[in-house]
Amino acid sequence: MNKLIKIAVDAMGGDNAPNKIIDGIELHNRNSKNIYYRIFGNKKIIEPLISKKNIQKKNYELIHTEDKVEGGDSALAAAKKGKNTSMWLAIQSVKNKTSNIIISAGNTGALFVISKLNLKMIENIDKPALSGLWPNKVGMNIVLDLGANIECSEKNLIDFSIMGSALYRSLFDNDIPKVALLNIGSEELKGNSIIKNTFKKMNELKNPIYEFHGFIEGNHIMDGNVNVIVTDGFTGNVALKTAEGTANFITSELKKTLSSNVLGKISSFLNLKNIKKFQNKLDPRRYNGAILLGLDAPVIKSHGGTDYIGFANSLTVCEKIIKGKLIDKIKDNIS
Amino acid sequence: MNKLIKIAVDAMGGDNAPNKIIDGIELHNRNSKNIYYRIFGNKKIIEPLISKKNIQKKNYELIHTEDKVEGGDSALAAAKKGKNTSMWLAIQSVKNKTSNIIISAGNTGALFVISKLNLKMIENIDKPALSGLWPNKVGMNIVLDLGANIECSEKNLIDFSIMGSALYRSLFDNDIPKVALLNIGSEELKGNSIIKNTFKKMNELKNPIYEFHGFIEGNHIMDGNVNVIVTDGFTGNVALKTAEGTANFITSELKKTLSSNVLGKISSFLNLKNIKKFQNKLDPRRYNGAILLGLDAPVIKSHGGTDYIGFANSLTVCEKIIKGKLIDKIKDNIS
Repeated sequence: MNKLIKIAVDAMGGDNAPNKIIDGIELHNRNSKNIYYRIFGNKKIIEPLISKKNIQKKNYELIHTEDKVEGGDSALAAAKKGKNTSMWLAIQSVKNKTSNIIISAGNTGALFVISKLNLKMIENIDKPALSGLWPNKVGMNIVLDLGANIECSEKNLIDFSIMGSALYRSLFDNDIPKVALLNIGSEELKGNSIIKNTFKKMNELKNPIYEFHGFIEGNHIMDGNVNVIVTDGFTGNVALKTAEGTANFITSELKKTLSSNVLGKISSFLNLKNIKKFQNKLDPRRYNGAILLGLDAPVIKSHGGTDYIGFANSLTVCEKIIKGKLIDKIKDNIS
Repeated sequence: MNKLIKIAVDAMGGDNAPNKIIDGIELHNRNSKNIYYRIFGNKKIIEPLISKKNIQKKNYELIHTEDKVEGGDSALAAAKKGKNTSMWLAIQSVKNKTSNIIISAGNTGALFVISKLNLKMIENIDKPALSGLWPNKVGMNIVLDLGANIECSEKNLIDFSIMGSALYRSLFDNDIPKVALLNIGSEELKGNSIIKNTFKKMNELKNPIYEFHGFIEGNHIMDGNVNVIVTDGFTGNVALKTAEGTANFITSELKKTLSSNVLGKISSFLNLKNIKKFQNKLDPRRYNGAILLGLDAPVIKSHGGTDYIGFANSLTVCEKIIKGKLIDKIKDNIS
């Protein structure tokens, strides 16, 4: 029999919370087994919502909290609100080992700071990194750091490569992952001294837990030739957001053109099924869920703007991470 | 009467050179007046090509050179070849004031190093920056630096903002441009100390030659709310290449889906005109031509992989830069 996976859910974070959170739980629950949702939030709002849903009472628990972290709170202000918020209590629940994993669609900065205040770092890791799923021609990459650390040392980047590899193996498959370092050229001579030294050290890693594929440039992130792409949080964040902006620009231009006249509208209608397939492949809800790595419990950040389908997908990420024994894998890799 | 614009063309650089260079000159020449092309390259190859083209003899001059910089040459190796290469001689031609501007589709690193060896920096500018045209919802941005400088000081970034504004005004219009600084958040607190200090200094600039719009995130580069986006060469290069990779990924996925079955093929055929319009808007040949700013003569780098249409477009960039008095504008702005 499979062990029960206990997910601590901050129900009060993100746009349209707690509605989308509860809807997401219902959707996820429909397709999953052996999941227990520990839901933190305002009972007066959530109880009437959840009572209408098709979720068995034995599959969840509602923990009341009056207060919540607001999207506009500074991380410090959020931390000061302390134990009265749904976010803080959800994180405490993994600290106490009452839950296996915590997920929130709320304020990213607050989630990091409160997680770091409450959870221990994994031994020998200096900085936590935010990692995300990035679609490519054949499946998904892991890219990290996406913004937790503006400046990174060689040691940090090597830690990220190890943690990212563990994440890839726990989410996708157990093969040895291919790791590359994001740079502005594929030659060894390019980049700043930190990147060049990291390259050397990664090349020399003994008993490698991954295959090192050297430098990768931004235009090859989506080629699907590697599995894990390592960079500092500043570069990673700019790359991620630039990719988002480019995708939005292209799809909105495409929509404009395809519906700019009657012929366009008719042919798009004829082709609806293909266009849907295309949209589905690029749907950001499919890869919703960024993972904060480095703490001794997994912390998942859902996009604040996603809907219940996106939130349900990030609950699937939670499930995979626990089944894939992410934290054990990181600890094994580090030692 | 308009003054003659003299363009020094390195005919031997880039894929399929010199054919595409000569074809590009013919195309540009058809739509332009008062341009004189000073073409550097191997006469034995170029003469038979150009004699078949519809270019009047009075509009160009062929300067023979046996040697050329190869794509695989290191910048140092290229510089050592010296005066025997078409690239070196073309650059020398702007140094001697025989030409107004130099363009090459060849080895980027070599072009920078040989330009820096031969041309003076504009007074009070410490580092040259590579700037490019980036399409947005309403037209084009200027983004710089795209890779000339991996690490940049506050002074460098401010210089880039000044040079980028001069470039925007000489290419597009003479209004006061809107400038933003690329960062990972729009709040003043985010980013490293160099970016935060640059923000402060830009905010305090007196008699501003541009309107400072604060920080911009990667996902807003293409919104069209600003005209010039400033960043260090590492971040700019990663952003540019990530945008390229994302655009390639999406358009190839779109093609695959639209032609995956008969219905898709038929409706795409019906919609050919709209699809062409879409492709045309995104066509990278439209914004071909990166500009090295900071030297006292304009140096233009055409994409090596572009075709003659793209090369002709970057000749138009050359023409606009001279007509727009780019170098004078930079000097005025700096002082």
